[in-house]
Amino acid sequence: MKYIGIDIGGMSIKAGIVLDNGEIIAKKTVVTDAKNEQKTVSDIACLIKSILEENNISKDDIVGVGIGSPGSVYDEKGIIRYSCNLNFKNTPLVKLLKDATGIDNIKVSNDANCAALGETLFGAGKGAKNSVMLTLGTGVGTGIIVDGKLLTGNHSAGAEGGHITINLGGPVCGCGKKGHLEAYASATALMEQVKVAIAKHPDSLLSKRAAEEGVHGKLVFDCKDAGDKVAEAVVKRYLKYVGIGLVNYANIFYPEVLIIGGGISNQGDNIIKPLQRYVSRNVYGAEYNPKIKVVAATLKNDAGIVGAACLVM
Amino acid sequence: MKYIGIDIGGMSIKAGIVLDNGEIIAKKTVVTDAKNEQKTVSDIACLIKSILEENNISKDDIVGVGIGSPGSVYDEKGIIRYSCNLNFKNTPLVKLLKDATGIDNIKVSNDANCAALGETLFGAGKGAKNSVMLTLGTGVGTGIIVDGKLLTGNHSAGAEGGHITINLGGPVCGCGKKGHLEAYASATALMEQVKVAIAKHPDSLLSKRAAEEGVHGKLVFDCKDAGDKVAEAVVKRYLKYVGIGLVNYANIFYPEVLIIGGGISNQGDNIIKPLQRYVSRNVYGAEYNPKIKVVAATLKNDAGIVGAACLVM
Repeated sequence: MKYIGIDIGGMSIKAGIVLDNGEIIAKKTVVTDAKNEQKTVSDIACLIKSILEENNISKDDIVGVGIGSPGSVYDEKGIIRYSCNLNFKNTPLVKLLKDATGIDNIKVSNDANCAALGETLFGAGKGAKNSVMLTLGTGVGTGIIVDGKLLTGNHSAGAEGGHITINLGGPVCGCGKKGHLEAYASATALMEQVKVAIAKHPDSLLSKRAAEEGVHGKLVFDCKDAGDKVAEAVVKRYLKYVGIGLVNYANIFYPEVLIIGGGISNQGDNIIKPLQRYVSRNVYGAEYNPKIKVVAATLKNDAGIVGAACLVM
Repeated sequence: MKYIGIDIGGMSIKAGIVLDNGEIIAKKTVVTDAKNEQKTVSDIACLIKSILEENNISKDDIVGVGIGSPGSVYDEKGIIRYSCNLNFKNTPLVKLLKDATGIDNIKVSNDANCAALGETLFGAGKGAKNSVMLTLGTGVGTGIIVDGKLLTGNHSAGAEGGHITINLGGPVCGCGKKGHLEAYASATALMEQVKVAIAKHPDSLLSKRAAEEGVHGKLVFDCKDAGDKVAEAVVKRYLKYVGIGLVNYANIFYPEVLIIGGGISNQGDNIIKPLQRYVSRNVYGAEYNPKIKVVAATLKNDAGIVGAACLVM
């Protein structure tokens, strides 16, 4: 069987034709016209038509189209409630695309949900029936799979798992509330933690290299690998914050696997090994239950396409 | 249709015959012989037989038997892994009871799970497809319903939701880790908070009445109602802790309803109104989504029997 997965991003919209085993047999990308809602919808419709045509596949030969979108998505109604980056506002995306393409089986979900679904079915969590994926980026996105199904909550308003309090009165989160996991464990939060360390330790390697290269995502890990104790301390503390988030989710869901996504996951064992140790030591009832595996996402840039296609599998 | 619900407690084992509408038409109780595992199992078997006999119901006329047990339960295997109060240790309760009673459809789950299921189907959460119940007692128990089904996690090891960190480095929880919700929001934690306030404010009404009555569960609420500012401050802060737990669960699950159980829930609107305000103000995306209702459990002492029966409905 063949499925189409669409990954809507702020910069580009990617489409792929996906097989039952998660393999992408064709890809096509267009630049996102983020300011114009109608243009975005029409671009997606054209992308679907052209990827089918170019690969000599009739629309009757695909099972359906799955779409991953940033922002707040009302899955059951096929509506994008809002998406800051894309100018969607209560956009009935599924209905508009059904009308424009004549394809009847179209579904949409939040992009973090799609990534978790893709990773769980075909990536780092393959074989798991229960998983939680934390995507550490600008914010902390969560995608949660329970018994093989996406957990979305009433009105698809759940799985906003970056917004759980882990420290009363802690730093202000992007959402305006204090002490949320996102304010400690996002890539943005790590950058802030690096900046504080630089100001405190102007003679550190971290500080010197930041002056040359600027504060980028890999900097603190590179400096730690080069033996800088200040960078090591920042990474250690940051991973503890991520670990606390993981353990909270482990104690609620006891999944087979916890998946780390986002650019930081490229650090591989550098972060996965200490996170695995932290989870194994701190999860409730670990002595009586199977080990929960901590893994890095593996689908990388394809996660969006594959995960979206999973919505109609 | 008729179902049997069994509620195993440290003091007594209660059985009830329950109808499809959640109504209990007969009840029977025996004292728990907590020290003797085999005796407990045999007592439950006898309880099932005698409640059927006394009500002239054949075992073929019941759909099945559901059992709620304290401790760590492996639902799918029908095993009680351990239960401090009951001397169960990897006890294959379901198999033993099937053999003893000849009834084939027997299921078991944790008692907090059963209470949440009962309250969601027939009590405070009636009509909801998604709910989270916090039982505020010696610890903080959680029961979670997703799309009408109990969330139990891999090996039924999940839903240990009292053990989520809400405050880095906070007070030590019953499980030995720091800063868990249970260490702030259990009835035990409230008593501790009351004791600290008494020591700090020896002239308060709270302090005077504690000297007369001892520190009991209702004391701080009674003193608050009598106008004591110290008690008022303790209650206010305690409810904020409970509120933080509720909002964490709301942001993960976005259920229709959050249910408060345990003795403290008898305070009714005294606690439900401020908790509702706290949740409505702090839940993520509240402006775009339906209000999450905060309610007090209504089944009270019957929750265990009704909820256990729900396991086989």
